[in-house]
Amino acid sequence: MNYFSSHFKLGILGGGQLGKMLLYNTRKFDIYTCVLEASNEAPCKTACDEFHLGDLMNYDAVYNFGKQVDVLTIEIENVNIDALEALEKEGVKVYPSAKTLRIIQNKATQKLFYVDHNIPTSPFTRFAFTSEIKEALNHGGLSLPFVWKCAQFGYDGTGVKIVRTVDDLKDLPNVECIAEKLVPFKNELAVIVARNASGETKTYPVVEMEFHPEANQVEYVICPARIDVAVAKKAEAVALKVSEAINHVGLLAVEMFQTENDDILINEVAPRPHNSGHQTIEASYTSQFEQHIRAVLNLPLGRTDNKVGGVMVNLVGAEGFSGNVVYENIEKIMNMDGVTPHIYGKKQTRPFRKMGHVTIVNEDLNEARRIAEEVKKSIRVISE
Amino acid sequence: MNYFSSHFKLGILGGGQLGKMLLYNTRKFDIYTCVLEASNEAPCKTACDEFHLGDLMNYDAVYNFGKQVDVLTIEIENVNIDALEALEKEGVKVYPSAKTLRIIQNKATQKLFYVDHNIPTSPFTRFAFTSEIKEALNHGGLSLPFVWKCAQFGYDGTGVKIVRTVDDLKDLPNVECIAEKLVPFKNELAVIVARNASGETKTYPVVEMEFHPEANQVEYVICPARIDVAVAKKAEAVALKVSEAINHVGLLAVEMFQTENDDILINEVAPRPHNSGHQTIEASYTSQFEQHIRAVLNLPLGRTDNKVGGVMVNLVGAEGFSGNVVYENIEKIMNMDGVTPHIYGKKQTRPFRKMGHVTIVNEDLNEARRIAEEVKKSIRVISE
Repeated sequence: MNYFSSHFKLGILGGGQLGKMLLYNTRKFDIYTCVLEASNEAPCKTACDEFHLGDLMNYDAVYNFGKQVDVLTIEIENVNIDALEALEKEGVKVYPSAKTLRIIQNKATQKLFYVDHNIPTSPFTRFAFTSEIKEALNHGGLSLPFVWKCAQFGYDGTGVKIVRTVDDLKDLPNVECIAEKLVPFKNELAVIVARNASGETKTYPVVEMEFHPEANQVEYVICPARIDVAVAKKAEAVALKVSEAINHVGLLAVEMFQTENDDILINEVAPRPHNSGHQTIEASYTSQFEQHIRAVLNLPLGRTDNKVGGVMVNLVGAEGFSGNVVYENIEKIMNMDGVTPHIYGKKQTRPFRKMGHVTIVNEDLNEARRIAEEVKKSIRVISE
Repeated sequence: MNYFSSHFKLGILGGGQLGKMLLYNTRKFDIYTCVLEASNEAPCKTACDEFHLGDLMNYDAVYNFGKQVDVLTIEIENVNIDALEALEKEGVKVYPSAKTLRIIQNKATQKLFYVDHNIPTSPFTRFAFTSEIKEALNHGGLSLPFVWKCAQFGYDGTGVKIVRTVDDLKDLPNVECIAEKLVPFKNELAVIVARNASGETKTYPVVEMEFHPEANQVEYVICPARIDVAVAKKAEAVALKVSEAINHVGLLAVEMFQTENDDILINEVAPRPHNSGHQTIEASYTSQFEQHIRAVLNLPLGRTDNKVGGVMVNLVGAEGFSGNVVYENIEKIMNMDGVTPHIYGKKQTRPFRKMGHVTIVNEDLNEARRIAEEVKKSIRVISE
């Protein structure tokens, strides 16, 4: 198929920041793009050729949108999978496939998949409803503490809670969920695997998610991770094993824990560009967004190694501010070495909302990490 | 001024490929953009927030467009300068300024400016009409060979001709022009200088334009240039001298000749992103497009050094093909190391039309140059 022609159409389900960054890269290749998204204020609106309003969980909206495109991809997992299955039957190329999304969309299904494929992950129990957990605790089938995760529709830390006492259960929604063993870990790592429809596969370097010592929030993504080569190889091998088992087309971002004993346990995966790969825009030979497009269009994959070291800092709404967004001190951080802000274009901020990210690149990764700390101290996302 | 708000508007005169690449970078900063362009099929059309149809040389079109924006910049020099002057008087920030454009838009004025400011350039004579040249030759005021250049509206080699015999004059248009001494040179070099409204100035590394041994056409732009440090320093000093004399805001691309004696002579300048800086997208810490936006918005300038070596190859329409464009072997070149094609989105090809460019990056510049040669041999821009 000639992608570089006006007859070809690429469809994207979801119009958020990941879609927007995907679209920059379609522009470079001059690919005609259509976006389906429920919000008329979405970041993608002015970045695509055709913007379609519609609910991503609605069968008809997804099906009718998908019928108009040649290749369909996603920037968010929460889409109507039945519609994707129907589209696949009618010859639309859907990447990731409906099958891949069925494994991933539900966290209980995802965990069972790891167990079935001998992929290391922390022990867990599935519950049809949160209310069943108390009983399991009473009967000794489960013990405190554990990590509660809702099975579906969690996003960016919502839908996850560490349960240390029975009291911690009381504000949780009564939904399908899993209770996962709380495994102490040294590092949270991630590897992005790219695979195109022909089966060509490449992995990006292992990255490290550095947490705030007190708040349980990722502060920095550091590429490459500052870990032993042996651990990096093990993480890469586990990521490749998941990727082969799932047999996805496009990117697969694999989040993992490095335990105290240097074991690698899968946390979860996402079949699309991912927050742990934003630094690739400036640091890598091929950004994760360009790579996702290469993969879903079955083009040859680009180099995944770094040109220079990269650190990514998320820009989230500051506590206590809601309303029209203002980026305090953005000029100050732009005056620092190798700093590029990415503003997603959301008009309204609220506490912890992802409003953008900042990448810091440097030939010396430690220097990049030092500057990232200054960025973090300087910039604030507040309201007018 | 808060550029990162929905109240701010950046205007761009011209909707071609340079504007399109500028717009990618405004997206990263979420800046609201308006484009004025005469063609409804321009590459910028789907990349901006507001697309306005209008003739860039028409006073009213430029004035009325400019009244709606806060900062106005260009992606092509051929715009109505009187309108820009009126806009400046009314408080619109115009970068480059009307004054800068008056110096540059007319090649005779540009050359006189160099003479007035002791900036080295090849000797020349200005003529109000090409028809006057014959007389000058007859009276001995001019001798063959020389380079004929039309004073206005030349673009990408049109409007330039080497005149070796009186016969070579006969097909030239009868317009204002200059006759420039034909100076033998070793290398054609370029330096891009960035300056923001506060006067902060940075230069990109010197690049080398490598010509085809037979055809008189730039084949590769190589960054950094493979020249002596002393010559590079001299070229940089000359570029900075021009930049200071012109006192531009935004980018200034300075094209120069390195003579047989290693003297540096100015060829011409462009006050905007330039073909000699396309490799900065992949090779530099800050692309020329991001830098131009930083400069015209008076933001701090980014680093201008290279992350890795970069070589750029222009994609021009092959001879003998006109019509709906096809990029032959594009998948083949995408399989080569560190290769990124940039397709400008022009639907129709014709011989020598600029349809895109390809960047090759590598930690080893010679390897990048070798791959660039393979790219050049493989890809062809033809028609359906």
